[in-house]
Amino acid sequence: MEGTPTNHKELLQAVQQGQLSVEEGLDALKRLNADDLGFAQIDHHRAWRQGLPEVVYCAGKTVEQSVAILLRQAQVGSGPLMGTRAPRAVYDHLEGRGYDFEYDDEAHLVVLRRGVPEPQGQVLAVSAGTADGPILREAEVTAELMGAKVERLIDVGVAGLHRLLGHLDTLYAARVIIVAAGMDGALPSVIGGLVDVPVIAIPTSVGYGANFAGVAPLLTMLNSCAAGIGVVNIDNGFGAGYLAGLINRGGCP
Amino acid sequence: MEGTPTNHKELLQAVQQGQLSVEEGLDALKRLNADDLGFAQIDHHRAWRQGLPEVVYCAGKTVEQSVAILLRQAQVGSGPLMGTRAPRAVYDHLEGRGYDFEYDDEAHLVVLRRGVPEPQGQVLAVSAGTADGPILREAEVTAELMGAKVERLIDVGVAGLHRLLGHLDTLYAARVIIVAAGMDGALPSVIGGLVDVPVIAIPTSVGYGANFAGVAPLLTMLNSCAAGIGVVNIDNGFGAGYLAGLINRGGCP
Amino acid sequence: MEGTPTNHKELLQAVQQGQLSVEEGLDALKRLNADDLGFAQIDHHRAWRQGLPEVVYCAGKTVEQSVAILLRQAQVGSGPLMGTRAPRAVYDHLEGRGYDFEYDDEAHLVVLRRGVPEPQGQVLAVSAGTADGPILREAEVTAELMGAKVERLIDVGVAGLHRLLGHLDTLYAARVIIVAAGMDGALPSVIGGLVDVPVIAIPTSVGYGANFAGVAPLLTMLNSCAAGIGVVNIDNGFGAGYLAGLINRGGCP
Amino acid sequence: MEGTPTNHKELLQAVQQGQLSVEEGLDALKRLNADDLGFAQIDHHRAWRQGLPEVVYCAGKTVEQSVAILLRQAQVGSGPLMGTRAPRAVYDHLEGRGYDFEYDDEAHLVVLRRGVPEPQGQVLAVSAGTADGPILREAEVTAELMGAKVERLIDVGVAGLHRLLGHLDTLYAARVIIVAAGMDGALPSVIGGLVDVPVIAIPTSVGYGANFAGVAPLLTMLNSCAAGIGVVNIDNGFGAGYLAGLINRGGCP
Amino acid sequence: MEGTPTNHKELLQAVQQGQLSVEEGLDALKRLNADDLGFAQIDHHRAWRQGLPEVVYCAGKTVEQSVAILLRQAQVGSGPLMGTRAPRAVYDHLEGRGYDFEYDDEAHLVVLRRGVPEPQGQVLAVSAGTADGPILREAEVTAELMGAKVERLIDVGVAGLHRLLGHLDTLYAARVIIVAAGMDGALPSVIGGLVDVPVIAIPTSVGYGANFAGVAPLLTMLNSCAAGIGVVNIDNGFGAGYLAGLINRGGCP
Amino acid sequence: MEGTPTNHKELLQAVQQGQLSVEEGLDALKRLNADDLGFAQIDHHRAWRQGLPEVVYCAGKTVEQSVAILLRQAQVGSGPLMGTRAPRAVYDHLEGRGYDFEYDDEAHLVVLRRGVPEPQGQVLAVSAGTADGPILREAEVTAELMGAKVERLIDVGVAGLHRLLGHLDTLYAARVIIVAAGMDGALPSVIGGLVDVPVIAIPTSVGYGANFAGVAPLLTMLNSCAAGIGVVNIDNGFGAGYLAGLINRGGCP
Amino acid sequence: MEGTPTNHKELLQAVQQGQLSVEEGLDALKRLNADDLGFAQIDHHRAWRQGLPEVVYCAGKTVEQSVAILLRQAQVGSGPLMGTRAPRAVYDHLEGRGYDFEYDDEAHLVVLRRGVPEPQGQVLAVSAGTADGPILREAEVTAELMGAKVERLIDVGVAGLHRLLGHLDTLYAARVIIVAAGMDGALPSVIGGLVDVPVIAIPTSVGYGANFAGVAPLLTMLNSCAAGIGVVNIDNGFGAGYLAGLINRGGCP
Amino acid sequence: MEGTPTNHKELLQAVQQGQLSVEEGLDALKRLNADDLGFAQIDHHRAWRQGLPEVVYCAGKTVEQSVAILLRQAQVGSGPLMGTRAPRAVYDHLEGRGYDFEYDDEAHLVVLRRGVPEPQGQVLAVSAGTADGPILREAEVTAELMGAKVERLIDVGVAGLHRLLGHLDTLYAARVIIVAAGMDGALPSVIGGLVDVPVIAIPTSVGYGANFAGVAPLLTMLNSCAAGIGVVNIDNGFGAGYLAGLINRGGCP
Repeated sequence: MEGTPTNHKELLQAVQQGQLSVEEGLDALKRLNADDLGFAQIDHHRAWRQGLPEVVYCAGKTVEQSVAILLRQAQVGSGPLMGTRAPRAVYDHLEGRGYDFEYDDEAHLVVLRRGVPEPQGQVLAVSAGTADGPILREAEVTAELMGAKVERLIDVGVAGLHRLLGHLDTLYAARVIIVAAGMDGALPSVIGGLVDVPVIAIPTSVGYGANFAGVAPLLTMLNSCAAGIGVVNIDNGFGAGYLAGLINRGGCP
Repeated sequence: MEGTPTNHKELLQAVQQGQLSVEEGLDALKRLNADDLGFAQIDHHRAWRQGLPEVVYCAGKTVEQSVAILLRQAQVGSGPLMGTRAPRAVYDHLEGRGYDFEYDDEAHLVVLRRGVPEPQGQVLAVSAGTADGPILREAEVTAELMGAKVERLIDVGVAGLHRLLGHLDTLYAARVIIVAAGMDGALPSVIGGLVDVPVIAIPTSVGYGANFAGVAPLLTMLNSCAAGIGVVNIDNGFGAGYLAGLINRGGCP
Repeated sequence: MEGTPTNHKELLQAVQQGQLSVEEGLDALKRLNADDLGFAQIDHHRAWRQGLPEVVYCAGKTVEQSVAILLRQAQVGSGPLMGTRAPRAVYDHLEGRGYDFEYDDEAHLVVLRRGVPEPQGQVLAVSAGTADGPILREAEVTAELMGAKVERLIDVGVAGLHRLLGHLDTLYAARVIIVAAGMDGALPSVIGGLVDVPVIAIPTSVGYGANFAGVAPLLTMLNSCAAGIGVVNIDNGFGAGYLAGLINRGGCP
Repeated sequence: MEGTPTNHKELLQAVQQGQLSVEEGLDALKRLNADDLGFAQIDHHRAWRQGLPEVVYCAGKTVEQSVAILLRQAQVGSGPLMGTRAPRAVYDHLEGRGYDFEYDDEAHLVVLRRGVPEPQGQVLAVSAGTADGPILREAEVTAELMGAKVERLIDVGVAGLHRLLGHLDTLYAARVIIVAAGMDGALPSVIGGLVDVPVIAIPTSVGYGANFAGVAPLLTMLNSCAAGIGVVNIDNGFGAGYLAGLINRGGCP
Repeated sequence: MEGTPTNHKELLQAVQQGQLSVEEGLDALKRLNADDLGFAQIDHHRAWRQGLPEVVYCAGKTVEQSVAILLRQAQVGSGPLMGTRAPRAVYDHLEGRGYDFEYDDEAHLVVLRRGVPEPQGQVLAVSAGTADGPILREAEVTAELMGAKVERLIDVGVAGLHRLLGHLDTLYAARVIIVAAGMDGALPSVIGGLVDVPVIAIPTSVGYGANFAGVAPLLTMLNSCAAGIGVVNIDNGFGAGYLAGLINRGGCP
Repeated sequence: MEGTPTNHKELLQAVQQGQLSVEEGLDALKRLNADDLGFAQIDHHRAWRQGLPEVVYCAGKTVEQSVAILLRQAQVGSGPLMGTRAPRAVYDHLEGRGYDFEYDDEAHLVVLRRGVPEPQGQVLAVSAGTADGPILREAEVTAELMGAKVERLIDVGVAGLHRLLGHLDTLYAARVIIVAAGMDGALPSVIGGLVDVPVIAIPTSVGYGANFAGVAPLLTMLNSCAAGIGVVNIDNGFGAGYLAGLINRGGCP
Repeated sequence: MEGTPTNHKELLQAVQQGQLSVEEGLDALKRLNADDLGFAQIDHHRAWRQGLPEVVYCAGKTVEQSVAILLRQAQVGSGPLMGTRAPRAVYDHLEGRGYDFEYDDEAHLVVLRRGVPEPQGQVLAVSAGTADGPILREAEVTAELMGAKVERLIDVGVAGLHRLLGHLDTLYAARVIIVAAGMDGALPSVIGGLVDVPVIAIPTSVGYGANFAGVAPLLTMLNSCAAGIGVVNIDNGFGAGYLAGLINRGGCP
Repeated sequence: MEGTPTNHKELLQAVQQGQLSVEEGLDALKRLNADDLGFAQIDHHRAWRQGLPEVVYCAGKTVEQSVAILLRQAQVGSGPLMGTRAPRAVYDHLEGRGYDFEYDDEAHLVVLRRGVPEPQGQVLAVSAGTADGPILREAEVTAELMGAKVERLIDVGVAGLHRLLGHLDTLYAARVIIVAAGMDGALPSVIGGLVDVPVIAIPTSVGYGANFAGVAPLLTMLNSCAAGIGVVNIDNGFGAGYLAGLINRGGCP
């Protein structure tokens, strides 16, 4: 055999065919495992992740870095792809590079909708106020890319309870509910008390003063009297959408 | 003139009668103003405070100190009197000392109900959970001592919205509403959105973990989306009851 | 009867006239209740809110969003209307659109003064320093739109006690007092000890260092030794004005 | 008609039979809706909640209160029932009262296992250290009462990665994973990177110093680089178990 | 007498001359006291404050406001005057208005040095690093305006102890020492252990990360093991200079 | 010369008398400086500290440790000595050991009053409430041991301003004022605005809820609008008394 | 071949001998890698860890749990073993079980000194105050068990600089220095500025008030102006000792 | 003798030759010790610091200040020199001034590589994400200037464990490892569990929401379950590099 085996199959074949002794095979295996584990884990991972979107968090990166990573991901993979908190310039540089990227102005997302599973289930995305919109939008798109059918119900904060109670049917129809709320962050508690499906709560940084950029709704949500609520980081629309997407497809093999 | 004038009237008379020159009068006045302002302010104060309860905060005091202060207040005044966060021992020492003190086991209050104005208006005291009871009780008794008619509505937290919505009439009948809530502290927001009377919100230290002994509901209440809510310190039942009592009697001359 | 009843009256008429059986009526009622509750609650709400201002918080919205919502509110309602934390551009876009909006440069308010009740009662608006002015102004305008007669007393912080004590008559004349203070936030405690009317305390973000953008005065106010103080969020002039407005009109049926 | 209708059916019948006019019916309906919404919501609720456990949080209650509420719940319902953070004395008082309550010494739970659905799905309960055990146990029992098949994997903190990596199959077999971790709280991040099912993270108060009674792991979990993680309050085993239970049964109609 | 008396002397004269009866005098006195207390207190105050600088905190004010207040103070008083955190534009507007204002570029101070007492005593102003300079400068100027002789010792942070220990004589010669330090804020502890005069510690916001804009040195200084240290707010050079100025002149009648 | 020189004088004598060469002297000096610097600094220190009390903080020590250290200090020194936060048992063990220790039950102090300078100056110790008493007492005793004449003014919190204003003369007579206040901590601001002498502010841990064990008054004091205030750690009566003592004796050579 | 291969060698032999096809080999390999990585990592780990102590953190465990784990560790291993924060009862149960455990009363350590490498290098353990002793002791024992020669220098806080400067030689002789300090935590900064070896800083929870149980010294240490300082958790003596032990032996193969 | 001795040798000679009496010598010595200690310490310091880089923290300084200090350091010393957080303008002003300064665009460093010791040992610099790059770069350059051979391993965060596990050999080869991580900051815990060399953890401010600008990873690292980790301030690349550099050269005399 010419050269060292570059994957496990080659290695086993070389041992089988006597090109490597058992001891040489062990040596090669030791080295291969470290590197290969990575790639194998990626593959294995990929197999599992079939249909899950890749995401690039663009906030801490230059436009050039974001574009480069997104293009590489687009080449390597075949599934959906998303860049979050991406300035429009990222999208501008991606145009005409051979992929059908879209740009979401509200949520500052770069999105490549390919290989998205057929919509199923029902994810309901709810916001307390209009200012929570961009964060909720990020969650919606993420869930959509994971194959979720997504409904939305906006501006139904608890200070005007009738707005929420007028949509009980919509609430009852969901398999999982995402709730984005800033200010007092009380909406997930109320919704959690009305339904019996998982509620994913997103505290948003909407507010001022003792809101502390989202700390107030974060604490409210963590301390909710209603059971069945999972909380994500402040303004983490992607995280909430991803978790909702996993739950939504969870029981539908 | 014999001696220095001990009040303003004496001073003016002495000047009028030539016992003091204008310059001597100015000197005497300077000194008198400082002291007298105090006493005058006390009197004036008292006149205003007709019917308001005196309160002794017993938490940082020994039983002996609390008893002594309460007895002195009982002797000096003629209105209602209350000792908050008082261990039962305070009450035990007050018995048989000539005043009809009562003890409230739930709220740890020593109360002397005398000179309480005729109940009027309507203060509604609401709690989110049963554990908020002692704090709410402190608020109720305080408001009662200030002449408020007090209703209560307990255990109507937002995680079971139907419990609250089943009592809309009670909510609508109040002139001012006190709401005690721990955990997520979301109840004042919901009630504030339903009514158009002042809501006094008491965050309680009921909860655990990221509740931080009442900080979570405190922040929730300060950040409420509903207008018309005033917040008091964590577990400050007395403060809420006092403020509600002032509001309740406010417009009823 | 053609089609399903779209409101409760039609439903009852249909049952009365035998177009619907009792069972069919119950089914229709169940569905109607959910939706209708919302609208009914709005109406009922409106009835109660007679004379209360609508408010649009413009801080988290684009100029276009703020303008659109304010115009819609102006069309739908007939009472006073206010946009808080509105850049001047919002006002510029509202001019010549058929409503007499004004702009308050100090408090960054867009205001539509229509249907404001006759001024009554007495709300006293007090500031500790001149830098608290814009927040206090927001509170004043809010209270005015709710029909309160508003007085102001500015720059009377506790470090120069004579400035405050020179206006005791003004303090004593108020039915409710709003106090805005940054820095040490000590003014509400002093005023609360002088009067026997409700005090609404607004911590402002005026200060630096260990002020933590208003946290220091917020804590001071929550821990006030004086009874009868309700606290609102840092810089929440609107909330304080609204609560004061409710209290001011409270007892004057 | 004798008296006013006490439910919707009576009301419709009274209108149908002419005992009430349409206008009288509208008046009665308005009043009925408020109360009935509550009761209707309870019933509707119950229907939905079929098979969900009732829970009583005993921490803030006296033994007597806890016992009374648990007994009432036992009488009223027919499903599983649980008292969390219950001292053994609660269990002692419940013995011989006609219900088969059990006591879990590790998690301080009073449990009544009745009407528990047939175990299905797979909830994996993982702890970073042995000290996280009681919290994890609370989560496990909760999920079990909701009909989940529960596996456990304990003491597999990230400082000894081999302990975790030796159980990848167990990780891959789960439908939802609960992870309890104190100290640095890093375990959910590592697990979340290995699997593609929802991970429910419980920060525990295990630790000292800059752990701040669970704040450190709470923040770690909220900031996890891995997607698909929902966080509950510090030490909130019940909440995590409930959410996992909902997710586990979610897609299995 | 024509009209009502406008000060106490007029009042006493009017009573003395029979123009006012004692009762009329009491009425007039009551009203006068409130207003006059203010003015009297100002005068009294002024008498006491002989030689103390007036200060205008310009940070929260417009240039116009700052200029107007500074000019008014310049007209009314005759002592030193200072505007802190003043942009240069304030100084530009003050030029040519008849007062010899200076501008300190390092500390952003507008200063009017008039009526400054003869320098006496010894205030030593010490900084840990060069970046603490502007804050220290504010303290120095303040102390100078109060008549203190001021020495400075800069860049002697504890990480290079020899820099400090080389100036023990300077330390020992001071009557009061101001120490400005950011980062770890350890310098006051070391100096406080070397001397037996009051040390005024100023935490500065110099630092990054877990410095939290001055919180770290603030806590260090509050927890100092050395006795004799008083702490002022973060970056409060004026406050430290003022306190040092008071102490410096304290015992020299 | 027999042996190596044990102090600087011996060293110089040895060099003078030729027992040591210059080079040997330099070697000896190098080693001596390190050790001696310590002792010299102690001596020098002591010389300076003439009349300053030694203090032992007993809180973190066993009774045995506290007793041992106090006895050693009593033997070595000749000035006043104090043990703070000492349980009575410490005093009990000190009795009959040859020193006239006293025990202060209110402040938990062990005190040895010897070598105390003749009382001079005037330190005024003020408390806002009776619960601040023990902390204030610690400050008083400390100042007394440093030779200060100490006056006290207690229970004059700002919520009853007349109590304070009735003692203006006492305030004006002080050379330095210590103010202990918990709750809202507003008293130093008010006093600081009335006087022109240094004010040492002690935040106490008296309070509850959002008081955070003294953080609220600490922040209030750091943010005081009044100039001339130095703040010490929460409950640090000793530190305040020591600083006041230094200031009080400062200008009296 | 009988059964599946249990390690890599068996697997390769089976492939070599045709007992497994390449495809079967790949399947077996996939499964083996996961499990084996764990065990291999343990072995490899152990090999590396030769001479490193095992530690059991006893604080969150029952006496029974601690004893059981310590005994198991004693049986399995042959190196040093330590139980931290262990009540004496743990030691009592370990006596007479066949291992020479010792108990350290100061630091609450259970220690089994076996297989400890020959002392080398020089770790200097320094404390600011006597109350930091137990934490420092924990660090010392840990370093000793790792083969470090350990010196100690106690009670040399920066408020008495001469105490530290009298031991410069000791400081200069160390290869790595551990510094434990509570209160202001300034000692590591001063020492870090004097030496050029790694300094491991342990903030201790010694202090009160704004010390916040060690947060103040923690921040001081993180913000140190001196370079070369690594910080561990509050009161984490073990962690500091372990890190110092690693550094001490680091360059001495 | 003409004039006073300017160093210790002159002093001893003067005493030896009788030009100074012993008493005069003692006086001169006292004064000399203070000053000389400083200078001697500087020299001594320098001798020790041979090969250690000087660093100028440019963040709080003007470009002019930074340039002036860097040039002075360049002139005075002969070793490596570094300006951290320096805007490019600092470098621009340094060009053509006679020193071979370089500029690192990623880490914003001005570097003068002269007198750098021969690379030795092995420092491994690891980052969790690409956004941690600039901070890690600062650490690398610092270590390099101290004579360390530096390897890097980037973007190996724990959410993709295979990326890290693929480089175990690199991990095992290091003498000390620097780990920079933002977000959840979990990477040092995982690495610390895999290796037995010191790990220096840098929390970075990469993240959002409840990350609190690096507080989350800071707490994670302080609470790490793995032993052998020292933590530096948030974003303190220099500090980590310096500490790693000290450790790396530590054992190689």
